[in-house]
Amino acid sequence: MSAPLLDQLIAALRILPGVGPKSAQRMAYHVLERDRERAAELARLLAEAVEVIGRCESCRDFSQDPLCRVCQSSGRERSQLCVVESPADRLAIEQATGFRGLYFVLLGRLSPLDGIGPQELGLEHLGQRLAAGEISELIIATSATVEGEATAHYLAQLARRHGVQPSRLAQGLPLGGELEYVDRGTLSHAFGSRAEVPR
Amino acid sequence: MSAPLLDQLIAALRILPGVGPKSAQRMAYHVLERDRERAAELARLLAEAVEVIGRCESCRDFSQDPLCRVCQSSGRERSQLCVVESPADRLAIEQATGFRGLYFVLLGRLSPLDGIGPQELGLEHLGQRLAAGEISELIIATSATVEGEATAHYLAQLARRHGVQPSRLAQGLPLGGELEYVDRGTLSHAFGSRAEVPR
Ligand SMILES: [Zn+2]
Ligand SMILES: [Zn+2]
Repeated sequence: MSAPLLDQLIAALRILPGVGPKSAQRMAYHVLERDRERAAELARLLAEAVEVIGRCESCRDFSQDPLCRVCQSSGRERSQLCVVESPADRLAIEQATGFRGLYFVLLGRLSPLDGIGPQELGLEHLGQRLAAGEISELIIATSATVEGEATAHYLAQLARRHGVQPSRLAQGLPLGGELEYVDRGTLSHAFGSRAEVPR
Repeated sequence: MSAPLLDQLIAALRILPGVGPKSAQRMAYHVLERDRERAAELARLLAEAVEVIGRCESCRDFSQDPLCRVCQSSGRERSQLCVVESPADRLAIEQATGFRGLYFVLLGRLSPLDGIGPQELGLEHLGQRLAAGEISELIIATSATVEGEATAHYLAQLARRHGVQPSRLAQGLPLGGELEYVDRGTLSHAFGSRAEVPR
């Protein structure tokens, strides 16, 4: 028996990950009771973000410009390319390690049963970057899941076809774990002790 | 090194209760990756809600109309008035009990140290409703916290001054517990076995 608009808002909040009916309700009441000005600002930013933010032409990370800030930067080491599954994974590596190279963001991992193949992950574009000759090491930072490993295997083969050395984060990652949720220390250690992929 | 707009969105999401830096980041990536259309809809509803939703003139609950749907309804028992601290508490009682009377929503509880007195809770308006003579029972459903009890004490005195019988939810509520989070069974039982407030 709440106001219809309020019901709609509560339902809409549930698109956010981890938000169930109870917390959606609490969120709606909270912003109406205490924080209307900042809620209006959130609404404006959300509308603008989904409108404006696209993909970086070079690394496929989220970007409001054709090239993201990392790819634009003149201070990055262009001979190392680190492949990650998601923007969150890229951010985790950026924050946990001293890596100063470039990235490639898959936004997913190979999963033939779900119709996600090399094309969906932009691997043709990755192949072109590898072919260009600037990259000497492809650091494969996909997650330690079955699909992440299959993706890593595919990427290692792709790198070798272009004469690029593939490496894989050390198996300090907890097995089956999502890279994004690994603690900084573990992630930093695994990144530092990455190994060449044996033939 | 994310796009500035994305950083702003992640920061803005933290106004939502229970959302820390990590989950704000996950939410932003999630809507950008998977659900832009529904995220735009959420942005629209949020902007409209904070603009349009005010307070019901009669019960002070959230409402986009001058009178909320409960107060407008001809099917409610107008001799019973239930006082709750928040819209969430009102909804919890509505869903857990068979109560068919009307409500009064304090949006808070007496807390002199925080500058929250009878005026901030609209108790003058409540006094006018009690004085109008239509109400025979004031059901006090404030929470079982120290401030909730102090508020209940004040409300009971206010009711008696207007010749209205105050009652209080039975002490089946867990002590110190927030009413909103009580399970339905406990809440329903406590509501059903409410007792007259002894003099
Ligand atoms: Zn980029
Ligand atoms: Zn009302």
